[in-house]
Amino acid sequence: MAKKILITTFMAFLLVGCMGHVAMAENPTEVPTSAQEVLSDKSVAIDTGWTLFAAVLVMFMQAGFAMLTAGFSRSKNAGNMLMKNLMDFCFGSIAFWAIGFGLMFGAGNFLFGTSGFFLTDSGETFSALSWSKVPLECKYFFQLVFCATAATIVAGAMAERTKFVAYIFYSIAITAIIYPIVGHWIWGGGWLAELGMWDFAGSTVVHSTGGWLALTGAIMLGPRTGKYAADGSSSAIPGHNIPLAALGTFILWFGWFGFNPGSTMALVPEIAHIAATTNIAGAAGGIAAMIAAWWMFKKPDVSMALNGVLGGLVSITASCAFVSLGSAIWIGIVGGVLVVLAVYYIDQFLHIDDPVGAIAVHGVCGSWGTLALGLFAQDKFSPGTTGNGLFFGGGVKLLGVQALGVVSVFAWSMATGFLLFYVIKNLVGLRVSREEELRGLDIDEHGMEAYPGFSIFTTQ
Amino acid sequence: MAKKILITTFMAFLLVGCMGHVAMAENPTEVPTSAQEVLSDKSVAIDTGWTLFAAVLVMFMQAGFAMLTAGFSRSKNAGNMLMKNLMDFCFGSIAFWAIGFGLMFGAGNFLFGTSGFFLTDSGETFSALSWSKVPLECKYFFQLVFCATAATIVAGAMAERTKFVAYIFYSIAITAIIYPIVGHWIWGGGWLAELGMWDFAGSTVVHSTGGWLALTGAIMLGPRTGKYAADGSSSAIPGHNIPLAALGTFILWFGWFGFNPGSTMALVPEIAHIAATTNIAGAAGGIAAMIAAWWMFKKPDVSMALNGVLGGLVSITASCAFVSLGSAIWIGIVGGVLVVLAVYYIDQFLHIDDPVGAIAVHGVCGSWGTLALGLFAQDKFSPGTTGNGLFFGGGVKLLGVQALGVVSVFAWSMATGFLLFYVIKNLVGLRVSREEELRGLDIDEHGMEAYPGFSIFTTQ
Amino acid sequence: MAKKILITTFMAFLLVGCMGHVAMAENPTEVPTSAQEVLSDKSVAIDTGWTLFAAVLVMFMQAGFAMLTAGFSRSKNAGNMLMKNLMDFCFGSIAFWAIGFGLMFGAGNFLFGTSGFFLTDSGETFSALSWSKVPLECKYFFQLVFCATAATIVAGAMAERTKFVAYIFYSIAITAIIYPIVGHWIWGGGWLAELGMWDFAGSTVVHSTGGWLALTGAIMLGPRTGKYAADGSSSAIPGHNIPLAALGTFILWFGWFGFNPGSTMALVPEIAHIAATTNIAGAAGGIAAMIAAWWMFKKPDVSMALNGVLGGLVSITASCAFVSLGSAIWIGIVGGVLVVLAVYYIDQFLHIDDPVGAIAVHGVCGSWGTLALGLFAQDKFSPGTTGNGLFFGGGVKLLGVQALGVVSVFAWSMATGFLLFYVIKNLVGLRVSREEELRGLDIDEHGMEAYPGFSIFTTQ
Repeated sequence: MAKKILITTFMAFLLVGCMGHVAMAENPTEVPTSAQEVLSDKSVAIDTGWTLFAAVLVMFMQAGFAMLTAGFSRSKNAGNMLMKNLMDFCFGSIAFWAIGFGLMFGAGNFLFGTSGFFLTDSGETFSALSWSKVPLECKYFFQLVFCATAATIVAGAMAERTKFVAYIFYSIAITAIIYPIVGHWIWGGGWLAELGMWDFAGSTVVHSTGGWLALTGAIMLGPRTGKYAADGSSSAIPGHNIPLAALGTFILWFGWFGFNPGSTMALVPEIAHIAATTNIAGAAGGIAAMIAAWWMFKKPDVSMALNGVLGGLVSITASCAFVSLGSAIWIGIVGGVLVVLAVYYIDQFLHIDDPVGAIAVHGVCGSWGTLALGLFAQDKFSPGTTGNGLFFGGGVKLLGVQALGVVSVFAWSMATGFLLFYVIKNLVGLRVSREEELRGLDIDEHGMEAYPGFSIFTTQ
Repeated sequence: MAKKILITTFMAFLLVGCMGHVAMAENPTEVPTSAQEVLSDKSVAIDTGWTLFAAVLVMFMQAGFAMLTAGFSRSKNAGNMLMKNLMDFCFGSIAFWAIGFGLMFGAGNFLFGTSGFFLTDSGETFSALSWSKVPLECKYFFQLVFCATAATIVAGAMAERTKFVAYIFYSIAITAIIYPIVGHWIWGGGWLAELGMWDFAGSTVVHSTGGWLALTGAIMLGPRTGKYAADGSSSAIPGHNIPLAALGTFILWFGWFGFNPGSTMALVPEIAHIAATTNIAGAAGGIAAMIAAWWMFKKPDVSMALNGVLGGLVSITASCAFVSLGSAIWIGIVGGVLVVLAVYYIDQFLHIDDPVGAIAVHGVCGSWGTLALGLFAQDKFSPGTTGNGLFFGGGVKLLGVQALGVVSVFAWSMATGFLLFYVIKNLVGLRVSREEELRGLDIDEHGMEAYPGFSIFTTQ
Repeated sequence: MAKKILITTFMAFLLVGCMGHVAMAENPTEVPTSAQEVLSDKSVAIDTGWTLFAAVLVMFMQAGFAMLTAGFSRSKNAGNMLMKNLMDFCFGSIAFWAIGFGLMFGAGNFLFGTSGFFLTDSGETFSALSWSKVPLECKYFFQLVFCATAATIVAGAMAERTKFVAYIFYSIAITAIIYPIVGHWIWGGGWLAELGMWDFAGSTVVHSTGGWLALTGAIMLGPRTGKYAADGSSSAIPGHNIPLAALGTFILWFGWFGFNPGSTMALVPEIAHIAATTNIAGAAGGIAAMIAAWWMFKKPDVSMALNGVLGGLVSITASCAFVSLGSAIWIGIVGGVLVVLAVYYIDQFLHIDDPVGAIAVHGVCGSWGTLALGLFAQDKFSPGTTGNGLFFGGGVKLLGVQALGVVSVFAWSMATGFLLFYVIKNLVGLRVSREEELRGLDIDEHGMEAYPGFSIFTTQ
C-alpha cells in the first residue's frame, strides 16, 4: 500500500516535471555570426566530443558492473542482478535529471544546491560547473553516469537476498539525494571544496559513497543463508560464472579511461598523463592483490586479482591528475593489498556478507585513494591546484583536509544509508523470504531462469 | 544448383569490381599548401574523428545483436545465431560498398541512385551527402554500419529455424538493394525527403525497415515447432542465456551513442542534446515496459525490461535532435509500453513467432518514433529543419508527411520482403527440416555445439 | 627457489625504479602565453584525444583475447586463461614502462634503444617518435597496448597446459625485451626501418612476433594430452563456450578500429581510408574462410569464420594506409583462406597443438600482410612513403625488403622464443603435470572453478 503511494507520488512528480519541461525553454541553438565565433564554436564542440566519448565509456561501466556482479552471484540470482543493474541506471537517469543534478551543482548553500531542477538554467544556476565550456546537457550526462556508478556499486554487496522493489526505492534515493549532496560538498562548491579538498574523478565522491552505502546495506540485510555457521566459521559461496566476472572487470577497466581522463570535461593534453597513471595503478593493483592472495591463500586467486585491478583503479581515481607514474604504482600496490586484507577482514572478522567485495574495493580503496592524494600530490602536474602532498614537502595540511573529507563522507553515507534502509525495510521490506532466497530470486521475483536448459545444481 | 550459380554470379561480379577498382583512382591525398588549408584540414579531420568514433560504436552493435539474439535463443541454436550475425556484417560490408551505397546516395532519380557503385565519385555523384565534409570513405563506413544494423534485426525474428544459406542470400539482398532504396527516399534526396519527411538517425530508415522485413520473414517461415498448440495456445520458449542477452542490450545502448549523436556526421555542440534525449528515452522505455509487464504479468519481467530499453531507444532515434528532454521521456514511455503490448499481441493474437521481439521493438517502435517527431518536434532545437510538431503549434502537416513515410516504408518492406523470401524459398529453401530444427541448427548446419561439456537438456 | 630469486629481483628493480621516478621530473605542464600557443595546444590536445581513443579501443582487445581464448578452451581451464590474459597486461604495463619503451624507441643503435627507461626523456631521447606531437605518456600508453597484444597472442597457443608462473615470466620477457627489440628495428629507427621496410600498424611487429613466439611455445610444450593418438590421428578438442569466443572476436574487430586508424598518432582525414580498408579486409577474410572451410569440411564452420575475420584483419594491418579498398578485399580473402589452410596443416601435418589457431592467424597472416604491402601498395595513398608495390609497377625492391623483414622477425622470434622457454622450463618448469592437466588448471593452479553449480562433463 505504502509502496503504491510512494511510486504514485514519484510518478506524479515526474509527470508534472516532464509536462512543465516540455513547454520550457532550453538553451536554444543560435547560429554563429563571425569567424571568431565559428572557431570558438568548434572548440566547444571538440570539448563536447571528448566529454561525451568519456561519458559513453563510463555509461558502459554499467555493463561491467552487471557482468561482474551477476558472475560473482549464483546462477539462481543472475537475472535479478542484471535487472537491478539495468534499472538503477534507468531510474537514475530520470531522478538525477529531475532532482539530483540541481542538488549537486545548482546554486544553493554550502550543503546542497537549491535550484536547477529539471536542468532549468537561469544563467547563473550552474556556476559551480562554469569552468567547463561544454553544453549543460553534456555536463548532465557526464555527471549522470558517475552518479549511476555510485548507485550500482551497492547492488553487489546486497546481492542474492534483496527485494527488487526495495532496490528500486534505494536507487531513486541515492541518485536523487544521497549522492548529489556528497557531490555538492566536493564538486559543487560546497563546504569541503571550500576547505580545499581535492578528489579529481571521485575516489570519495563516487566510490566511497557507494562503498559505505553498500556497507550499511549489507549490515541491515544480514548475511546470506548458510554463509556463517553457528560457530562463526565462514563458507565461501563462489560466483557462478567467472568468465562473466572477468569480462565485467575488463569492461570496467576500459570504462575507467572515460572516468578519469574525461573528468577534465575538456580536451587537453593532460589527459595523456591521467590515462597513464590510471592504467599503471590498475595494473599494479592487480599484481599486488595476486601476490598478496598467493601469499595468504597459497594460490593466485582469480577473484582477488580481478578485484585488485579494480582496487588499484579506485585508488588512483582521486589523484590521477596530480601524481607521477611512479607514485601511481605505489598507490595501486597499496590499493591491491588493501582489497585482499579488507575482503578477508570484513568476511572473517566482521562477518559482514559482501558477495562481490564491493565494500573493500570501493569503500576502503576509495578512502585510501583520497588520502593518497594528500601524500603523493605534486604541484607541478597541475600548477595552482593541490600543491604538494606530504611526501613531496607539502606538509600535512592537504592530507588533513583529505582525511576530513574521508571521515565526513563516511559519516554521511553510513547515517543516510542506515536511515534509508530502515525506512525501506518498514515500508516495503528489505529482504526476501528464506524460501525465496533458497529457490533463488530469479524465479520468485521475476518468474524466470537465467540459463533454461542447462543442468544446474546448487548446494545452498 | 541454383544456389551455386547465384553464389558464383555474385562472386564473379565482385571479382570484376575489385579488379577494376584496384586500378581505379580513389580520392588521392593532396598536401595542403596554405595555413588556411591546414586549419580547414584539421576541421575535416576533427569531423572525421567524431564520425569514425560514432561509426565504430555502431559497428559494435553487431556484437550487441549477436549476444541478444543468441541469448534469447535456445542453446542448440546459439552458434548458428552468432554465425548469422557475423556473416551479415561481412557480406553487407562488401555488398554495400559494391552496390548499396550507390543506390542509396549516388545521383539518380527520386526512387534510387544510379551511380557511385564501388564508391566511384565523379565529383557530383554524392551531392546528397555533401552537407558533411568528412571523406567519402568515412561516409561509406558510417552508412555501412547503419545498413548492417537493419540487416541484423531480421535474424532475431527468424531465429532457430532459418537455413544458413537462405540467410546469406537475404543479407546480400537487404544490404545491396532493399535497405538502400528506402535510404534513398529519405536520406538520399528521394521523394520522401522532397516531401519534407524527417528521420534524424533512422527510426524508419533503419529500424522499421528491419522490423517489417523481420515480420515478413517470420510469417513466411511459420512458427517454431511446438510454439503454438492445436488449440491456439502459445508456449513460451525461453532464451538459454539471459546474461548474454542483457550484455547485448547494454552493448546496444552503448552503441546508440554512436547511432544518434554520430548522425550529425560533424562534431558540433548539438551532440550533447542528442545524447541526453537518447539516453533518457531509453531509460524511460525500460521503466515503462517493466511497469507494464509487472501490471500485465504480475512480475517485473527481465526480457520485457531489456526490450523496453531498446524500444525507447528506437523510438527516440527519429527525433533525438528535434525534441526536448521532457518530450523524450514521453516518447520513450510510449515506446516501452508499445513493446509489451506488441510482443503480446503478435504472439497471442497474430500467432507470429518472433523469438526475440524484433518486430515489436524495431517495426512498431520505429514507426511510433517517426510519428512522434510529428507530434513533439520543436523548431528551436534545429532552426529551419523540422519546424514545430502538432503538440507545439505546428499543425498536422509534418505529422502527415511522417505518417506517409511510415506507411510507404511499411508497404515497401512488406512487398519486397515477401518477394525476397518467396524467391529464396524456391531457390534454396527457407526453413530447415523438422528433424534438424529439433536437433538444433548448430549440429546440422555447422557441425558444432555452442557449449561442449555442459550438460544441457532441451524439452523441445 | 630460483623462482623466488627471480621474482624478488624483478620486484627490487621495480622498487628502485618507482622510488627514483617519484622524485624525478616529468614533463611539467606549462601555461601557454599567446593565442598562437593556445591554438597549437588545442591541436596537440586533439591529436592526444584521438590517440587515446584509439589506445583505449586497443586496450579493450585484451578483453577480446581473454574471451576468445577462454571460449576456445575447455571449461576446466577457463579461469586460468582469463587470469593469464589479465596478468600479461598488468605485468606488461609496468615492464614496458620500466624497460620496453626505452629499448624500443629510446635513442640507441640500429638493434635496440639504450635510453629512455622509466620514460626518462632528455629531450632527444625519443626522436624516433618525434613525428607525432602527442605527449610522451600518450605515446607510451598507445605503444603499451600494442605490446600487450603481442604478449597476449601467445597465451592462446599455449592454452590448457602451461604453468601459471611460467606464463608470468614469459609475459615479462616479451614485453620488456623481445617485442621491443623487433619494434626498434621497424618502428624505432632500427635497421629494417633504415632499409625501407614498412609495417603501418604491426602485421609483423605485433602479430608475427606474437604468432612465432606462440609457435615456439606450442612446440616446447608439446600437445595436450589426448590430442594426437599413437597412429598420428588428431582429435578435435572443441572449445567450451562459443558465444564467448564470438564475443571476443567482435571485441577484437571493434578494437582494430583503434589499432589501425590510431597508428597515425594524429587526427588526420586519412583515418577514414584506414578504417574502411581495415573493415572490408576483415569482412572478406571472414567470408573467404567460411567458404574455404565449407568446401574442405562440408560445413560453414563457426570457429573458422571467426578466425577468418581475425586473419583478414591481421593481414591488412601492415598496409591499411597504403592500399585501395579493392586491394584490401584481396588481401583479406587470401588471409582468410590462409587461416583455414594453416590451421589444418599445423594440426594435421605438423602435429603442433594450437588450441585457438593463434599461429595461423597471427604468425602466418601477419607475414602475408607484410608481404602484401609489397604487392599492393600505391604511392598515391600516402605520397612519399612506401611507393608502389609490385602489382602497381613498383618493382620487387619493396617486396624484397618486406620479405627480409618477415624472415628476420621469424628468425628472431623463433630463436628468442626457444631460448626463453628453455630457460623457463629449467627454472620453474613450463608444463603442468599430467594429473593437473586432466583435472584442469583452474583447480590446481587457482583453487577455483569457472562455473560452480553447472553440471559439466569432460571426456578428456
